[in-house]
Amino acid sequence: MVRKFKLAICQSNAAGDKTSNIRHADEMVRQAASQGAEVVMLPEMFNCPYRTELFPAYAESYPNGETIQMLSGTAKAAGIVLVGGSIPEIDGDTVYNTSFIFGPQGELLGRHRKVHLFDVDLPDLKVRESSTLGPGNNLTVVNAGFCKLGIIICFDVRFPEIARLLAMEGIQALMIPAAFNTVTGPAHWELSMRMRAVDNQIYVAAASPARDEKAGYVAYGHSMVVDPWGEVLVEAGLGSEIIMAEIDPVKMEEVRGRLPLLAQRRTDLYSLEWKKEDGNENN
Amino acid sequence: MVRKFKLAICQSNAAGDKTSNIRHADEMVRQAASQGAEVVMLPEMFNCPYRTELFPAYAESYPNGETIQMLSGTAKAAGIVLVGGSIPEIDGDTVYNTSFIFGPQGELLGRHRKVHLFDVDLPDLKVRESSTLGPGNNLTVVNAGFCKLGIIICFDVRFPEIARLLAMEGIQALMIPAAFNTVTGPAHWELSMRMRAVDNQIYVAAASPARDEKAGYVAYGHSMVVDPWGEVLVEAGLGSEIIMAEIDPVKMEEVRGRLPLLAQRRTDLYSLEWKKEDGNENN
Repeated sequence: MVRKFKLAICQSNAAGDKTSNIRHADEMVRQAASQGAEVVMLPEMFNCPYRTELFPAYAESYPNGETIQMLSGTAKAAGIVLVGGSIPEIDGDTVYNTSFIFGPQGELLGRHRKVHLFDVDLPDLKVRESSTLGPGNNLTVVNAGFCKLGIIICFDVRFPEIARLLAMEGIQALMIPAAFNTVTGPAHWELSMRMRAVDNQIYVAAASPARDEKAGYVAYGHSMVVDPWGEVLVEAGLGSEIIMAEIDPVKMEEVRGRLPLLAQRRTDLYSLEWKKEDGNENN
Repeated sequence: MVRKFKLAICQSNAAGDKTSNIRHADEMVRQAASQGAEVVMLPEMFNCPYRTELFPAYAESYPNGETIQMLSGTAKAAGIVLVGGSIPEIDGDTVYNTSFIFGPQGELLGRHRKVHLFDVDLPDLKVRESSTLGPGNNLTVVNAGFCKLGIIICFDVRFPEIARLLAMEGIQALMIPAAFNTVTGPAHWELSMRMRAVDNQIYVAAASPARDEKAGYVAYGHSMVVDPWGEVLVEAGLGSEIIMAEIDPVKMEEVRGRLPLLAQRRTDLYSLEWKKEDGNENN
């Protein structure tokens, strides 16, 4: 039964080595749960510096990787839904930017592999994720009983088709582990998170790593939760920080009653379709 | 050949009777052209107070209606492309919220009938356009030689599918005669215009009526032009005002080179299609 719940974002720092990054994330998640959060999210690449050349060395495989074990164990110990930000995952010969989502019994609820890789040529910032990563091939919806969540990773948010398709699957919140930077962050971070919420009349939660000015890639920070009317309910600063907000399906339905956007789509004029493959919604 | 040009928005006031509204709009368009604008846009319902019950009485038919005659004649006299905001148009038994677009020889370049009617139930603001209007049944692209424009009207902007489909048709600018109000304006006007520009890496121009505090429906004002990176190039205040900006296809291509969003769409995972009917792209 879908109901109200508290959501927390842990804006953790991935400045240390892998073991200390995992420990830091684990502590923050437990702290968020102790404050009443039932859904907790970590940022993109929370166990690894955001440097494409490091992803293969940090990669681990399901289910025995140490980060994956921590996520499952901590979700179970805290009795929460844990959207495990993202980590480099290896499967066969391919490394993915993957979010593992675990439930209150430590069970795997879903797995999202970033589908749009970040290949850009910005002033003073050239990144090619595709140099070391392979793309995911599916969209991801997680049904946790008391809530239905859509999961996308960072650059995926740039493509309005995905948020729309996930909203049409009936999610209440779009969960976005992400690491915008100091070029795209000021220009597009808040704008993107608010507009996906407004267009689709859902909650949007975006988790950034804390800012590390000494890093090669400086994350924007400003993790936030936006409500279905587009208001920013809570926003982090730049440092390591936990933020909390309430997700309320009743409030969502109120917004949809006032401006019935999803009901007024002109499906006779345009069609948007998710090309599903059988059985791989969770990859 | 697509090239740079100056675009003007006339934030005109529809507070008078029909004849004076037409004269006021005509004067503003000529003034904008005299300042070097090659494309000029008027707001939604620029000849008529925004009151659904008045639309049938103000409606006129193509090509002999007095507003339509003014638009064609002024486009020709000034040698410009004129996106004629919108007016109530009658065709058979149906009244539409229609934008007529005329070229430098006074020729009809296109016609957009608002496809998503504004039926909302906001606090202190209940509107049902569908009580007096019929919906358009097509999307509208206008090819003016030196530029390709997409035309949508107000509530149409709420649906990200349309801006995306028009961008995929190769437009440089999305032209939006619109009349947000003092509830939706502060919440969503700038956000919507900026995000359609950012997602689709196009210019977005939005024309509001000037604000009339005595009107039954108080328009938001704040007409604006946004560039393909999402920066507001120019923004009007609340009164009757002309704003101008330069539309530069080279700048658009630079943004697309930095963040190749349109090229990175995962068309293997999702499809977005315009269900075209033959021969009625301009209705």
